[in-house]
Amino acid sequence: MSKGTVVLAYSGGLDTSCILVWLKEEGYDVITYLANIGQVEDFDAAKKKAESLGAKKVFIEDLRAEFVEEFIWPSVQASAIYEDRYLLGTSVARPCIARRQIQIARQEGAQYVSHGATGKGNDQIRFELTCYALYPEVQVTPWSMDANLMHISHAPAGLYLMTKSPEDAPNSPDVLEIEFKKGVPIKVTHVKEGKSKDTPLDIFSYLNEMGGRHGVGRIDIVENRFIGMKSRGIYETPGGTILYHAHLDIETFTMDREVRRIKQGLGVKFAEMLYNGFWYSPECEFVRHCIDKSQERVEGKVQLSVFKGQVYILGRESPKSLYNEDLVSMDVQGDYDPCDASGFIKINAVSLPGQLPASPGI
Amino acid sequence: MSKGTVVLAYSGGLDTSCILVWLKEEGYDVITYLANIGQVEDFDAAKKKAESLGAKKVFIEDLRAEFVEEFIWPSVQASAIYEDRYLLGTSVARPCIARRQIQIARQEGAQYVSHGATGKGNDQIRFELTCYALYPEVQVTPWSMDANLMHISHAPAGLYLMTKSPEDAPNSPDVLEIEFKKGVPIKVTHVKEGKSKDTPLDIFSYLNEMGGRHGVGRIDIVENRFIGMKSRGIYETPGGTILYHAHLDIETFTMDREVRRIKQGLGVKFAEMLYNGFWYSPECEFVRHCIDKSQERVEGKVQLSVFKGQVYILGRESPKSLYNEDLVSMDVQGDYDPCDASGFIKINAVSLPGQLPASPGI
Amino acid sequence: MSKGTVVLAYSGGLDTSCILVWLKEEGYDVITYLANIGQVEDFDAAKKKAESLGAKKVFIEDLRAEFVEEFIWPSVQASAIYEDRYLLGTSVARPCIARRQIQIARQEGAQYVSHGATGKGNDQIRFELTCYALYPEVQVTPWSMDANLMHISHAPAGLYLMTKSPEDAPNSPDVLEIEFKKGVPIKVTHVKEGKSKDTPLDIFSYLNEMGGRHGVGRIDIVENRFIGMKSRGIYETPGGTILYHAHLDIETFTMDREVRRIKQGLGVKFAEMLYNGFWYSPECEFVRHCIDKSQERVEGKVQLSVFKGQVYILGRESPKSLYNEDLVSMDVQGDYDPCDASGFIKINAVSLPGQLPASPGI
Amino acid sequence: MSKGTVVLAYSGGLDTSCILVWLKEEGYDVITYLANIGQVEDFDAAKKKAESLGAKKVFIEDLRAEFVEEFIWPSVQASAIYEDRYLLGTSVARPCIARRQIQIARQEGAQYVSHGATGKGNDQIRFELTCYALYPEVQVTPWSMDANLMHISHAPAGLYLMTKSPEDAPNSPDVLEIEFKKGVPIKVTHVKEGKSKDTPLDIFSYLNEMGGRHGVGRIDIVENRFIGMKSRGIYETPGGTILYHAHLDIETFTMDREVRRIKQGLGVKFAEMLYNGFWYSPECEFVRHCIDKSQERVEGKVQLSVFKGQVYILGRESPKSLYNEDLVSMDVQGDYDPCDASGFIKINAVSLPGQLPASPGI
Repeated sequence: MSKGTVVLAYSGGLDTSCILVWLKEEGYDVITYLANIGQVEDFDAAKKKAESLGAKKVFIEDLRAEFVEEFIWPSVQASAIYEDRYLLGTSVARPCIARRQIQIARQEGAQYVSHGATGKGNDQIRFELTCYALYPEVQVTPWSMDANLMHISHAPAGLYLMTKSPEDAPNSPDVLEIEFKKGVPIKVTHVKEGKSKDTPLDIFSYLNEMGGRHGVGRIDIVENRFIGMKSRGIYETPGGTILYHAHLDIETFTMDREVRRIKQGLGVKFAEMLYNGFWYSPECEFVRHCIDKSQERVEGKVQLSVFKGQVYILGRESPKSLYNEDLVSMDVQGDYDPCDASGFIKINAVSLPGQLPASPGI
Repeated sequence: MSKGTVVLAYSGGLDTSCILVWLKEEGYDVITYLANIGQVEDFDAAKKKAESLGAKKVFIEDLRAEFVEEFIWPSVQASAIYEDRYLLGTSVARPCIARRQIQIARQEGAQYVSHGATGKGNDQIRFELTCYALYPEVQVTPWSMDANLMHISHAPAGLYLMTKSPEDAPNSPDVLEIEFKKGVPIKVTHVKEGKSKDTPLDIFSYLNEMGGRHGVGRIDIVENRFIGMKSRGIYETPGGTILYHAHLDIETFTMDREVRRIKQGLGVKFAEMLYNGFWYSPECEFVRHCIDKSQERVEGKVQLSVFKGQVYILGRESPKSLYNEDLVSMDVQGDYDPCDASGFIKINAVSLPGQLPASPGI
Repeated sequence: MSKGTVVLAYSGGLDTSCILVWLKEEGYDVITYLANIGQVEDFDAAKKKAESLGAKKVFIEDLRAEFVEEFIWPSVQASAIYEDRYLLGTSVARPCIARRQIQIARQEGAQYVSHGATGKGNDQIRFELTCYALYPEVQVTPWSMDANLMHISHAPAGLYLMTKSPEDAPNSPDVLEIEFKKGVPIKVTHVKEGKSKDTPLDIFSYLNEMGGRHGVGRIDIVENRFIGMKSRGIYETPGGTILYHAHLDIETFTMDREVRRIKQGLGVKFAEMLYNGFWYSPECEFVRHCIDKSQERVEGKVQLSVFKGQVYILGRESPKSLYNEDLVSMDVQGDYDPCDASGFIKINAVSLPGQLPASPGI
Repeated sequence: MSKGTVVLAYSGGLDTSCILVWLKEEGYDVITYLANIGQVEDFDAAKKKAESLGAKKVFIEDLRAEFVEEFIWPSVQASAIYEDRYLLGTSVARPCIARRQIQIARQEGAQYVSHGATGKGNDQIRFELTCYALYPEVQVTPWSMDANLMHISHAPAGLYLMTKSPEDAPNSPDVLEIEFKKGVPIKVTHVKEGKSKDTPLDIFSYLNEMGGRHGVGRIDIVENRFIGMKSRGIYETPGGTILYHAHLDIETFTMDREVRRIKQGLGVKFAEMLYNGFWYSPECEFVRHCIDKSQERVEGKVQLSVFKGQVYILGRESPKSLYNEDLVSMDVQGDYDPCDASGFIKINAVSLPGQLPASPGI
């Protein structure tokens, strides 16, 4: 008799295959689930392997469009960056993948979910917090030691997959124009070739391709995991890096300074929540709502070039611009009275030491 | 043969007595330790009980002076308050108590410590985090279910011990003057009676007495525990409440506005760390250092009255005052040019919508 | 020939009367405007005086309901408090008063507005920033030195108008129940008398009356003005103080801890904006939107007593409660596994010094 | 008869020469002052020109070493960056330049200072706030319209001076090793060439040279000025950009996560103060003190390459490392119990919606 049904996040690799076998031996029915979020993968082979190992059902789910629209776009709006450097590419995939797994578990009447993430990483936390948030009664089956010991085989070697080395990248830049509306890209155009993309998945894939070609978005960092240890991360985020810079630019061009300051603080919090696995939490939903609100005016076009690992902003334009060229330039005074600056400065100096004699008491 | 030595934080009550017996039955040598941090307690009786239950050694430690100076004073400097209401009286005692327990464990060569706090409360966390911080190799022996089940006997009943009911409090106020230096009280004087106190413990005890007499510092709140659940807390903090108000007053009188704003943010963080049990952590040490630095100028005298549960500030004076009476009053202009205010306002209005025509691109 | 039309915020007092006369002498047509925001005032007398001094038109506007609903309620939602003590009663009135003045100026085709606030206070700034925000082309006519010199006559003397002295307050408390929905009060009931109020203006007026009777909400503080100087403020905010405490209580009872933490930070910013005169600014509109969003679940009833200057929370209930009594109490374990706490603590201790040996490089 | 003495910040250019002449015509004695902070300038020619225009005295001051040590180093410690992009190269020079000008004014008995910065820019504010902070009685002589109108001639054209275009930069990287102590660089070594520098000025100059050669540190941004308008800034900060990345890396490697989080918030504030001209203010001194404290452990070596406009971190090592290689890798469990992670996750999930049934009241 079956102990119940487990939906296993299955990669087709050695460790989750071991978990599959072990779960069956322990007496569970196992449904495997493999999400396509754009990784390079032989999905057919994984399907066949799962079936051959005794999976009762096999789900291969194409989540690419919803991943871009529902998870990456809000992160772009937030300028989400962890510890000043990491664009959270792995973190943002977890809640997307786990959400579908939970949907399958509910639909198939499974009380259990399982995964191959280890007890030391962030991914276990992100995975499990999402499961508990979306299916409070669910039980997470223990991850297998053995499987995790094998995990070392995945360790970094010739590790960059998406990006060319900047040294091998082309010797001339590509120039792109990205159009934003409400803080998310709605179109990308290759300026010279005139080619353009306008669905979220196409836009993001194209930026990945362009960024990858020019070696954009590689970092080698030490980061602080949620569980308190430092670890080294080597990441490549070509499209995300381009969007980070382009969005920052159009945002500063169209957003009030003080709104941006507050939004920046919220973005820091959002990045932490995302990193720590709290996408599905009251606080993260609240912060996403606030950030989304801040993006109402963030629209316009940014021109940029990608070259040898770098993104260079070339210019920007927007119907919602808050930039006033005449006022800034020196020879048009407009309504701006230079004496106001003196008053402004003097008032700002009032609280500097020595400006004011003090009264001892009151 | 003994399994090793445990230093048990022992209260003399039922639950820690059960733990003592259980630890001995499990084969440990048990040293009991009871801290005097000012609570009402029959220390002799507790000592005898511990001995009669088989404690190998009994420590009764008077920590009152160091508790006030090293733990309460920094909290006063920080204006530490959790979730806008709770003055952290319990939280601040934990690291003080656990520190001494660890000192005893090291000195007695004990590898284990134990305590009676339950798995649901904050106190277990505060206790254990302090132990791990100060003695990384220590092991915390498991708390006993049974003991904790009995814990319910401590639940609120006729619960206020330190404070009179405001309704029963005297019908006329007491007026006190508190003198601060570097953000901590160095003297309290009863204005009418001329009586004064000038050691930390005496000052704090006297403020507890005065506050208690007038019913100051009672609150009934719902708070968010570190472990994510809400709980109800009913607290009385008479002396702490008086100091909170007096310190806030002299601080605002002597501290630069912007320094105070930054320090206020640090104080919020400090309160969370304290509440969550991270007194002994790099971040809390860092924040305490910064807050202490902010207090260099915080000196002077605050006059206040306590009456029917309230603290009323009556006045303040300081050699480090940043208040300028002449400037504020309307009939002495001094160096202040009113036209500066217009310039200040106009510059502040520059970024308001509609002030500036926009340029679409750059 | 007239130089144009000025809408003057007119109080009926000496200083604004002087401004009225002076503006007419300078060649302006003057429309006076007096807002009723609940102050004690002889509006008829002010009207007659304005007319006798040559006002072309006289507006007396009852803004009480909109003041409570559109300005006070958002401040209650925000728990808006400046420098930890000041409930911003004066600050919150300015944008309400100036908004109507601007509406009158637009409707009457006036290019100018004027007021009696001095160059050293916050009120000038609050007034003028609101005007520039809502009517960018408006000109603010210079305030008169003479008028401001006379302003000293308003200085504190026997100054409390709304509140009884706590010493003279009744010797028994009144117990009230306030019902909230979306973070604003929708009903207040006097528990013993069964009397209740349910429009915003009635609720707030009644709380002012109750608080005033018991001496609630008096403070004597030193505050930091926007223009950098410290000034002394003596305030009485009886109804606002009651609402501050009641709202804080129901909010903590119904709001997620982390949402509250973020909202608390936004509330601090909101209070500064309000104090500094930026109600009508992109950043304040953004923050109000976010705070309003945070209040969706903040509903329920708070019971409290007012007595001798104090507000005591007695209890709370809510259909949106996040409090779980069984879980908190010690004898029902429910789904909570006490071993989880050990894991939680150990992971939290991972980054404490001494827990981890270090690797020198990577 | 002279109206008094003015110390004029003199560049040798057209506008400050006009101011010099105008001040003399107005009846002032003029002392010119030109700071060498590393810019390309013909100091001899400027000296002769000032003398020929009637300067009473001419000061040419080499501030390069103190500029690097006292102003740039603290900014490196702070990771100071304005609005996520601008490394504050101009801002950080102002207080350094103005400080010496004030020293000269005091020493020469001058009551006035003057400068050529316009009323619309940030530099006027930074200059004047520094003057008022260091010499409260000083008067700033009005800047001349004419001079400022000419300022347009300085506008961007073939504007990059310090950096090569990335396209023209060498086709192979240079690899550098930077050694830090207390968060500031104490040595830079060219790994291949073995060449090294070890005084602050030499280190910074060498990094400027290396970064410049590889086109590092160019940005084209829109930024929000203190006075509320947006302006476009085109900056090149080669050495500063290298140090920003290297410092960030060694800091994350050696600093506790939570300390870093707090320090990051302080750094954001520091950057704003610096940008707005408040280097000499109580709040900036306070924040610098706190940041400096946070850097105590920030020491070690960072290897990096500079190539085609980019800085790539290659590795880091430190005697103060908080990184533990064994713990992170999958096959060594050490003291880390994977079950702790489950407890940690479950406790973190306690407050997620649906985990807990609620009690309606208390």
